[in-house]
Amino acid sequence: MAQSGGFSSVGFVGVGNMGWPMAACLVKAGFNVLVNDSRREVANNFVQQVGGAAPDSLRQLAEASDVVITMLPTSTIVQRVLAEGDDNIFAGMKPGAIIIEMSSGVPSVTQRLAEQVAALGGALIDAPVSGGVPRAKTGELAIMAGGDAATIDKAVPVLSAMGSSVLRTGAVGSGQAMKALNNLVSTGGFLIGIEALLIGQRFGLDPGVMTDVLNAATGMNNSTQKKFRQFVLSRKFNAGFTMGLLAKDLSIALQVGRETGTAAPLSALVNEMIVSAQSRFGPDADHTEMAKLCELLAGSELEAD
Amino acid sequence: MAQSGGFSSVGFVGVGNMGWPMAACLVKAGFNVLVNDSRREVANNFVQQVGGAAPDSLRQLAEASDVVITMLPTSTIVQRVLAEGDDNIFAGMKPGAIIIEMSSGVPSVTQRLAEQVAALGGALIDAPVSGGVPRAKTGELAIMAGGDAATIDKAVPVLSAMGSSVLRTGAVGSGQAMKALNNLVSTGGFLIGIEALLIGQRFGLDPGVMTDVLNAATGMNNSTQKKFRQFVLSRKFNAGFTMGLLAKDLSIALQVGRETGTAAPLSALVNEMIVSAQSRFGPDADHTEMAKLCELLAGSELEAD
Amino acid sequence: MAQSGGFSSVGFVGVGNMGWPMAACLVKAGFNVLVNDSRREVANNFVQQVGGAAPDSLRQLAEASDVVITMLPTSTIVQRVLAEGDDNIFAGMKPGAIIIEMSSGVPSVTQRLAEQVAALGGALIDAPVSGGVPRAKTGELAIMAGGDAATIDKAVPVLSAMGSSVLRTGAVGSGQAMKALNNLVSTGGFLIGIEALLIGQRFGLDPGVMTDVLNAATGMNNSTQKKFRQFVLSRKFNAGFTMGLLAKDLSIALQVGRETGTAAPLSALVNEMIVSAQSRFGPDADHTEMAKLCELLAGSELEAD
Amino acid sequence: MAQSGGFSSVGFVGVGNMGWPMAACLVKAGFNVLVNDSRREVANNFVQQVGGAAPDSLRQLAEASDVVITMLPTSTIVQRVLAEGDDNIFAGMKPGAIIIEMSSGVPSVTQRLAEQVAALGGALIDAPVSGGVPRAKTGELAIMAGGDAATIDKAVPVLSAMGSSVLRTGAVGSGQAMKALNNLVSTGGFLIGIEALLIGQRFGLDPGVMTDVLNAATGMNNSTQKKFRQFVLSRKFNAGFTMGLLAKDLSIALQVGRETGTAAPLSALVNEMIVSAQSRFGPDADHTEMAKLCELLAGSELEAD
Ligand SMILES: NC(=O)C1=CN([C@@H]2O[C@H](COP(=O)(O)OP(=O)(O)OC[C@H]3O[C@@H](n4cnc5c(N)ncnc54)[C@H](OP(=O)(O)O)[C@@H]3O)[C@@H](O)[C@H]2O)C=CC1
Ligand SMILES: NC(=O)C1=CN([C@@H]2O[C@H](COP(=O)(O)OP(=O)(O)OC[C@H]3O[C@@H](n4cnc5c(N)ncnc54)[C@H](OP(=O)(O)O)[C@@H]3O)[C@@H](O)[C@H]2O)C=CC1
Ligand SMILES: NC(=O)C1=CN([C@@H]2O[C@H](COP(=O)(O)OP(=O)(O)OC[C@H]3O[C@@H](n4cnc5c(N)ncnc54)[C@H](OP(=O)(O)O)[C@@H]3O)[C@@H](O)[C@H]2O)C=CC1
Repeated sequence: MAQSGGFSSVGFVGVGNMGWPMAACLVKAGFNVLVNDSRREVANNFVQQVGGAAPDSLRQLAEASDVVITMLPTSTIVQRVLAEGDDNIFAGMKPGAIIIEMSSGVPSVTQRLAEQVAALGGALIDAPVSGGVPRAKTGELAIMAGGDAATIDKAVPVLSAMGSSVLRTGAVGSGQAMKALNNLVSTGGFLIGIEALLIGQRFGLDPGVMTDVLNAATGMNNSTQKKFRQFVLSRKFNAGFTMGLLAKDLSIALQVGRETGTAAPLSALVNEMIVSAQSRFGPDADHTEMAKLCELLAGSELEAD
Repeated sequence: MAQSGGFSSVGFVGVGNMGWPMAACLVKAGFNVLVNDSRREVANNFVQQVGGAAPDSLRQLAEASDVVITMLPTSTIVQRVLAEGDDNIFAGMKPGAIIIEMSSGVPSVTQRLAEQVAALGGALIDAPVSGGVPRAKTGELAIMAGGDAATIDKAVPVLSAMGSSVLRTGAVGSGQAMKALNNLVSTGGFLIGIEALLIGQRFGLDPGVMTDVLNAATGMNNSTQKKFRQFVLSRKFNAGFTMGLLAKDLSIALQVGRETGTAAPLSALVNEMIVSAQSRFGPDADHTEMAKLCELLAGSELEAD
Repeated sequence: MAQSGGFSSVGFVGVGNMGWPMAACLVKAGFNVLVNDSRREVANNFVQQVGGAAPDSLRQLAEASDVVITMLPTSTIVQRVLAEGDDNIFAGMKPGAIIIEMSSGVPSVTQRLAEQVAALGGALIDAPVSGGVPRAKTGELAIMAGGDAATIDKAVPVLSAMGSSVLRTGAVGSGQAMKALNNLVSTGGFLIGIEALLIGQRFGLDPGVMTDVLNAATGMNNSTQKKFRQFVLSRKFNAGFTMGLLAKDLSIALQVGRETGTAAPLSALVNEMIVSAQSRFGPDADHTEMAKLCELLAGSELEAD
Repeated sequence: MAQSGGFSSVGFVGVGNMGWPMAACLVKAGFNVLVNDSRREVANNFVQQVGGAAPDSLRQLAEASDVVITMLPTSTIVQRVLAEGDDNIFAGMKPGAIIIEMSSGVPSVTQRLAEQVAALGGALIDAPVSGGVPRAKTGELAIMAGGDAATIDKAVPVLSAMGSSVLRTGAVGSGQAMKALNNLVSTGGFLIGIEALLIGQRFGLDPGVMTDVLNAATGMNNSTQKKFRQFVLSRKFNAGFTMGLLAKDLSIALQVGRETGTAAPLSALVNEMIVSAQSRFGPDADHTEMAKLCELLAGSELEAD
């Protein structure tokens, strides 16, 4: 199979919101996809509705796969699936197998797992994604890949079935670090922009006009362009990325900061604001609702013109 | 004179780094320009090298001008020039005159001055600019105009000689508030981006690669695009806008926050970082040297690839 | 009159919550007290109920006083009372008169006023107080005095009638700076302590036990000792000092920071939290209600054992 | 042995700066002390110079001990000593044994270890200390004890040999949480106080006088009383507790905050400042050198009078 770069069988653990459409892209691209999920019926549904197979255990999945993808909520779960518990991937991993850890995980945990995989004769790369469920469905995710260049080369055909771009960030774990840090910068730009809108509105400026001026000037950032009018000033708060996932990403960014001993005061304050927003609005709130925390601190609500 | 909107004479107080090229644009556009500067010889040089005239006093300048532009370091100085001291603009201001306050000033002071001008039968608008000396020279400044719409309409021919766009922001003072808040958002995006680069570099990511990824993703902002590689990673620190001016803009933004009783924790922290950077690197340092404060806190220096 | 140090007549402007009992102490100590207040009937009531006289104007009050005390809400009002308006103190100030500015005011404004007083042949010292209304009543305020040592020496008999201690802090304005900075440190200790109680409570520790341990250990501060159990854990919030006055003190502390170009990130964040608390709970809330802002950010309420 | 509460043999793992004098107190109190250290010769030296015995392995130490104390740098090491590696305590732990974890550790790790100990038929309490080496030598440490009340009761005779007070804080892990949070509050009070001194000094106040006024007023805290004049204004910086240990304590406090999802913005900023101070001045610097970070941000050095 040309497009599969020599791999016919891809194991896929975690067919959730993101994993399901991603695995479906692989089926469509002609891979033999073996799925697993903590809820057995989800895996079965996938096979019925999309294709592939659902082996009885992680061990069996691993034994039948050249590549194993993990797309799971947290690094702790990835660690359990790969290495711990009665049934796990390492128990059946083929020599020369490639593990692609695509979850938004903790770089230092991923690095340790990569060492264990290497000791077992395989190779692990991390390849977290951005773009959300919509772009997971169309196979147009942006993928940040960290790890040995030759291994990434081999994985490209698999990754290309799910994403439209593969950015190489460096050693293993670097994709996850980059992803978390990107979200930190994005969140910082969002929050400082909202603070400015609030100060301006109380002064008498119109937040919609302000947004336009910021976008025409040096205050411009991704949030002023794509989120302020669309989700905040409209009061729609439906960007589609949850507060809980954002909070996880920021906690990873901050953890990298702590593990490397890097003081970053603004980042720390941004993180506390997200922790507070999550505790107040819940993990299922849209991440743009973090604007409401700024409003609460300022004592005003932003209003559209 | 068609392009002069009925005004033939424009007084211009403050022919400094910005004021000189701006006044020169007015001369070029056919206005009769009357200049004043605290250093008498600068005003004379302007007349010799560019044109116009240099009246002996502010009173005389005002008596001969339909429009008076102020382009001065601070609102305190604008206040002195307009209203205080032995010689001032109010002493000679014509009925129906328009004052265009183009300095990056304090909105609440400008509002009080506008009331005084109105009481004297004139009208004051604020019209701070962005774009720096290069765009002042080419007459392509971005101008944010606050004040009575009809007065701004009348001022447009004058403003258009100096700027390529006139954004209307609302009531008088709002141009200055908007400008300061824009710079606050810009600075916040810069600093959080540098913190992320520092965390990433200590983890093992390359800051240049990180900048590229941020620009391709949601971490993008004006600084990641136009300042990080150009002035920070290159260690050139020559963007051409000084720390002192940035510090003044942020202090104005924060003052608006205080005067409106708007809590804005991130903004306050950003401001402290700039106060610290200015105290360490001096007001004449390039504003991009604020990255060095983050480096100092993190204990590493960013390196280009 | 021995205890009056040679002064028989003391003018007192501002017989409000603090000023009334302070002026009453002066009456009791044998001074001839001349009171003034923006509400004429308040001054009259004072004369009826306590003693002294209420001249018709500030000018007349000044003409009859060796010492003039100001105890007013803000420096802006002090400035108006001393120097501006149709009727003011300077209009009647005697040569050699001493002005004692006892409000919690802005040091730089006070310094400018001191220069004006000196130019008019008098002397101004600042002498803000702490201790609140209860200690104002008993004449046991703590007074921080800034200004020329000889002038303070002369003022001591007057000050001693109102306070139990006079701490000399340095040049004029320094009393007010010291007072504001003391309240900043106090507020910082309060807020970080409450944050710790909140983290601990969510972990499973009892906030009352925590308070006891802090008090027995290095976490001890004035708030852990005198405010946490008493006003926060008891949910009484009735320490008797308002949020509005605290917010004013902190804004003065921060203004001194800005005017001296001193970066102080924690102080700035503490100030934003108080601005937010005031905007949420109102200026008349007890200052200990600032704990509720921390609770709101943390998403839990502190509970007594 | 009356004073030993029925226990004759106490194992002690980690005879370092703190552990050595603590174990020596136990020898003096009549316990049969069995020591272990990663550096074999240190354990041998202890036996030679102080007494007790040094079993060949952790397993043997556990087999011979009724109580095992851990006094180690980090929870990761405690976990290794108790449960992991080829040789460990669990391998030899007696039924009914009590483990007293006295390190400044991570509460959540300690809680997991306590569960494992319980599953093995023993009981674990945490009992971190404060007071430093001087009070370790005199057996006058302040001990914060978390865990089952009956187990703490049994441990009191052992604890009393090392400490002058045993504060009970609640369930297991709570001693460590309390200790870390206490140090957070202490550090916050230190830093805000230093910021105030810096603002004041630049205004013209004397930092020594300021310290005295704070101590006489509501700005008082443990640092203003016992550290500012003694170690900062004197420029001695020799309080005897290192930056590295403080940084560890704060990172634990912040980790408890994160694990409980408690937003605490001031705490986060305090922590970043310590991370920065440690990265600049090194883990072996005295913790009071954190004042130098504030000085660096403010751009001035504090000077004694
Ligand atoms: N949603 C988004 O927009 C984006 C998400 N991400 C990241 O992608 C990852 C996946 O996110 P998302 O798909 O939204 O999360 P979901 O929770 O929807 O999917 C995770 C899936 O993994 C399953 N799972 C959990 N534990 C195990 C286990 N031990 N063995 C096998 N399967 C298990 C879950 O089953 P169960 O439901 O039973 O727990 C679920 O089906 C996360 O790391 C997230 O941060 C990245 C970019 C965007
Ligand atoms: N209350 C407290 O616990 C403490 C207060 N302070 C400080 O002491 C000062 C006074 O506080 P407090 O007494 O509580 O405030 P109040 O508002 O109770 O008293 C101020 C008094 O001044 C009067 N006043 C206002 N403007 C003028 C004017 N132009 N001419 C004459 N009188 C005027 C007010 O009258 P009107 O009511 O008509 O405005 C009022 O009677 C403040 O600076 C405060 O920060 C210091 C320590 C503790
Ligand atoms: N020092 C102080 O003022 C205070 C310290 N604490 C806390 O007390 C604890 C101990 O601190 P301190 O005594 O200063 O630290 P030290 O580093 O001086 O002592 C730790 C001792 O444990 C030994 N050790 C390390 N790993 C192992 C292992 N795997 N097995 C056996 N022994 C091992 C070390 O040996 P080696 O040197 O070979 O690593 C060292 O002798 C820390 O948690 C600290 O935070 C609490 C209050 C005050």
